[in-house]
Amino acid sequence: MPTLTERVAAGDRRALAQLISRIEREDPLAQEILAELHPFTGRATVVGVTGAPGTGKSTLVNALARIFRCGLAGEPPRTVGILALDPSSPFSGGALLGDRIRMRDLALDEGVFIRSMASRGCLGGLSRWTLPAARALDAAGFEMILIETVGVGQDEVDIARQADTVVVVETPGLGDDIQALKAGVLEIADILAVNKADLPGADSAAGSLRSMVDRSGRNVDGWQPPIVQTVATTGRGVEELAAAVLRHRDHLRQSGEGERRDRERVKRDLEERLRARLFDRWQTSGGKELAEVAEKVARREVSPEQAVQMLLKEDTASQTG
Amino acid sequence: MPTLTERVAAGDRRALAQLISRIEREDPLAQEILAELHPFTGRATVVGVTGAPGTGKSTLVNALARIFRCGLAGEPPRTVGILALDPSSPFSGGALLGDRIRMRDLALDEGVFIRSMASRGCLGGLSRWTLPAARALDAAGFEMILIETVGVGQDEVDIARQADTVVVVETPGLGDDIQALKAGVLEIADILAVNKADLPGADSAAGSLRSMVDRSGRNVDGWQPPIVQTVATTGRGVEELAAAVLRHRDHLRQSGEGERRDRERVKRDLEERLRARLFDRWQTSGGKELAEVAEKVARREVSPEQAVQMLLKEDTASQTG
Repeated sequence: MPTLTERVAAGDRRALAQLISRIEREDPLAQEILAELHPFTGRATVVGVTGAPGTGKSTLVNALARIFRCGLAGEPPRTVGILALDPSSPFSGGALLGDRIRMRDLALDEGVFIRSMASRGCLGGLSRWTLPAARALDAAGFEMILIETVGVGQDEVDIARQADTVVVVETPGLGDDIQALKAGVLEIADILAVNKADLPGADSAAGSLRSMVDRSGRNVDGWQPPIVQTVATTGRGVEELAAAVLRHRDHLRQSGEGERRDRERVKRDLEERLRARLFDRWQTSGGKELAEVAEKVARREVSPEQAVQMLLKEDTASQTG
Repeated sequence: MPTLTERVAAGDRRALAQLISRIEREDPLAQEILAELHPFTGRATVVGVTGAPGTGKSTLVNALARIFRCGLAGEPPRTVGILALDPSSPFSGGALLGDRIRMRDLALDEGVFIRSMASRGCLGGLSRWTLPAARALDAAGFEMILIETVGVGQDEVDIARQADTVVVVETPGLGDDIQALKAGVLEIADILAVNKADLPGADSAAGSLRSMVDRSGRNVDGWQPPIVQTVATTGRGVEELAAAVLRHRDHLRQSGEGERRDRERVKRDLEERLRARLFDRWQTSGGKELAEVAEKVARREVSPEQAVQMLLKEDTASQTG
């Protein structure tokens, strides 16, 4: 009987779903399987699609997925994995009926794998699970991986940074409240979509984004983030957006920027793992004192800074002694 | 001449502003000063005010601050510190003129200290700086510390968890997009404010929040989160909200829940510091191999899991040898 690793590598959907569930449960076996799957990864294009609630980014992800499935002009059809991290996303069940109907066809397509990673109703863990889940999809042979995030908090920015290509979704006439949030998110945009472009003000929204992007000097690595007007519900502009994603992928390959990003991602991931492992190891050896010292800090007898010094000195002592 | 530590402890505003700037720059001196200030902390009530953009939470924070300054019926006036983490907050400069005028009076009050921690336009670091800044305000003698966050990402939830009291701000008639986000944020709410309660649908919004809160079983620790209707722009309901905050503070003291939260906060903070310090220490001793091993992972020669094992074994070897 083939192992779970073999089944995932062969593209078995049920095995893939099981693996992602294990990842979410933080089952140690998931780590082992991912390690075994590592040689099969690195082939997918990971696209982060991020935007505030109400920008229609789920519908846009849905429309993009269809176009990649059908194949753009001159391009082969591609398999698509979708990871939805926004708890309000229709992919996560927080949907209007119309959206759910639109997404049903996609869900029945064997070349599409959709997973909501927000179904627990808990806000933690998203960034911890998303990358391993994307790795699993990659190993299972999905060629385009679309990660949908709500795009406001640091967590979302982190996830977006892990993608090869980041699409930031805006809409015409968003209020001043959102306006100020844009600056931070624009920094990570490789492509901008002005969705709901049939609403009044689309051209002026695109124009003001254009000047914000130009001012931010984001074109230093030879890529000028394009701004594409879309109407996800009718499909208008979505082919153009898909083409921009593929153009960006080619740019990443040709400029060496893709390799640079991959190196950086790997390094950040290793650092994260090292931090966790080092702390676990410390807890096993010298972690007994933690509660006791924490009590002293709470009583304001020692400061947190002193407490760390105390705890780490004890740790060192116990290792050398 | 008094040191910076002494000046902050004496409530010197310029010294406090300097210290917070050092915290944001991650100046090592800030750590030392905070350690020295530790005995002066633990007196303030820290209130996290969180809500989506457009809920008017900045105006509400402003109105709450005024009421604490003036003194509620039967209560003394209190000094107030405000930390604004929402880059779209009027406190952060992303303001409408009306808001800025409303906040000007507050900014001129010696018993109020306002600091925007989002002015760098960068989304990272908020949670890393906010707590130390709140500690600095606490040590400088500010009695009520209001932390305003945008309340969507994990970062914001983390910050809110650090507060003694979490106020979640909603408005009538928020769309379905926001609705699904509520569940996660409601879990951390000690008090709910339905702001803009002069809009249609306020009673029904309050009613549906009531039933969501009741269903979530949040009253297990003997505190039933109250739902207060407010109109921050006119001040309607804001006294009631301030009274709820003080009632919750009393509840925390009497039930022992406040002490429990403080212990948990201290422990989480220590763990965070230990993680960072352990990694720094490892980098100094065995961190040279990191880039090399990362390269192997990127070339898919070893998996991240194997890489960590390799790096930590080398580290162990270099310590024992």
